[in-house]
Amino acid sequence: MAHELGNIFESLPEDISKEIFSELVRGDSFKIERIVSKGHYSPASGWYDQAENEWVAVLKGEAKIAFEDGAEVHLTAGSYLTILARTKHKVTWTTPDTETIWLAVHYQ
Amino acid sequence: MAHELGNIFESLPEDISKEIFSELVRGDSFKIERIVSKGHYSPASGWYDQAENEWVAVLKGEAKIAFEDGAEVHLTAGSYLTILARTKHKVTWTTPDTETIWLAVHYQ
Repeated sequence: MAHELGNIFESLPEDISKEIFSELVRGDSFKIERIVSKGHYSPASGWYDQAENEWVAVLKGEAKIAFEDGAEVHLTAGSYLTILARTKHKVTWTTPDTETIWLAVHYQ
Repeated sequence: MAHELGNIFESLPEDISKEIFSELVRGDSFKIERIVSKGHYSPASGWYDQAENEWVAVLKGEAKIAFEDGAEVHLTAGSYLTILARTKHKVTWTTPDTETIWLAVHYQ
């Protein structure tokens, strides 16, 4: 089908013992992915330190992201945030009771 | 605040007699915007014919998009679709009873 629809809220994997990353679309130096978390968070030590900018939204569930400068933000359904390249950050919490569905757009 | 959150589902304008386009983030040849519709659709004649690719998702509400090849897709909450550059299309319907909230990512 030429105009195929996907659905962000459907086709959730049964096993989410690990976070699930699904690439939805890719362009030149550009990518959109869906992330499904359920109680997952980043390792206590170390930071994500990305070479590209990331625009991230929580579409369902809840999460917290901490930054190296000490700030922490609490994302609920609809929350979005731009994380510029080289901004060290980590996911400190996602709600363990339900899936958290993220949309992450990586761009230059 | 360095890590400012927005919310896709909040700050809806009171007057949506016209569709509302809000730019959320912009990069080099890249843009994410939120679109709020309520019963709006494209003019009966003519097509959108864009020089860039567009990835579009309906996060709330419902919409229909038609293509020059005769196909029509019905988007509900969570539906997403890639519309490649120069693919002529139009919005033929959005639900008149509630806001339809779109996320549109324009990329090359």
